[in-house]
Amino acid sequence: MRKTVYEGRMVNLIVEDVTLPNGVVTRLEFMTHPGASAVVPLHDDDTITILRQYRHAVGQYLWEVPAGKLDRKGEDPLACAKRELAEEAGLAAKEWTKLGSIYTTPGFCDEIIHLYLARSLEPVEQHLERDEVIEVHRMTLQEALAKIPTEEIRDTKTVGALLAAARMLGK
Amino acid sequence: MRKTVYEGRMVNLIVEDVTLPNGVVTRLEFMTHPGASAVVPLHDDDTITILRQYRHAVGQYLWEVPAGKLDRKGEDPLACAKRELAEEAGLAAKEWTKLGSIYTTPGFCDEIIHLYLARSLEPVEQHLERDEVIEVHRMTLQEALAKIPTEEIRDTKTVGALLAAARMLGK
Repeated sequence: MRKTVYEGRMVNLIVEDVTLPNGVVTRLEFMTHPGASAVVPLHDDDTITILRQYRHAVGQYLWEVPAGKLDRKGEDPLACAKRELAEEAGLAAKEWTKLGSIYTTPGFCDEIIHLYLARSLEPVEQHLERDEVIEVHRMTLQEALAKIPTEEIRDTKTVGALLAAARMLGK
Repeated sequence: MRKTVYEGRMVNLIVEDVTLPNGVVTRLEFMTHPGASAVVPLHDDDTITILRQYRHAVGQYLWEVPAGKLDRKGEDPLACAKRELAEEAGLAAKEWTKLGSIYTTPGFCDEIIHLYLARSLEPVEQHLERDEVIEVHRMTLQEALAKIPTEEIRDTKTVGALLAAARMLGK
């Protein structure tokens, strides 16, 4: 039994009877998602561009690195990262480094986010969607990293990308 | 309009007409989740206990630190962390340090995972649920950290917790 119980704008919810590798048969709920890319935009002066974005699901503004969904499963994640960096942060980058990738909720969703460091930045035109509530900010990489243990920065792609960038750069 | 379109074992799916802070009215889909805790169990010899867990939603085994859902919204996250460390990894810890917390998918779910470092470990009895497919492994913290840029470790709570622990410990 595999049934799509809800087809949404962002996710589809599926209920399926599954035989696990240990032989147990169980009914699982999970969602499919196209995947996403996220970018740490690091300027030459060691500041980053970081967004303050309203998230209704958690009822608050969060600090987030620029990010967005792939147009479809299989879109080149780097092309998506470049598009989102331009649309959300108004930036283009000459130098791109892959930092890793993260499954955000493998217990119930197949979303994967590809993490990038973007350097050699220059301004381009920003294009927000009408349902995106985003302010663009600058802070040093060290200021941003200090907000992780204090729980001021809690968005998981932002936590993972900032820490991975700092480790890769030895900062 | 706010309607629960699916009530599941793990999540409830809600559709709601929302007025955003910028005045835009839009229909949003999101899920509610009780929250969770995750633990990096660091032994005295600088190895960690880490799990190999089958995840049907992504169709593969993932490397994951011990973790699990809160019994209910509002349960003490540290109590949850202690329970999951015992049940999944067969360990108890005398020394606990909060590393931060992560919203895993703030675009469509309110799940938050509280991240801990656990030290001064001792063995206790492991209790797996019948639908948990988990192998317990040991590797050094450095070996685990090296698997993040190579994308062998991709579970987001594991990426965030390992990098935050390494940064806090100066390792």
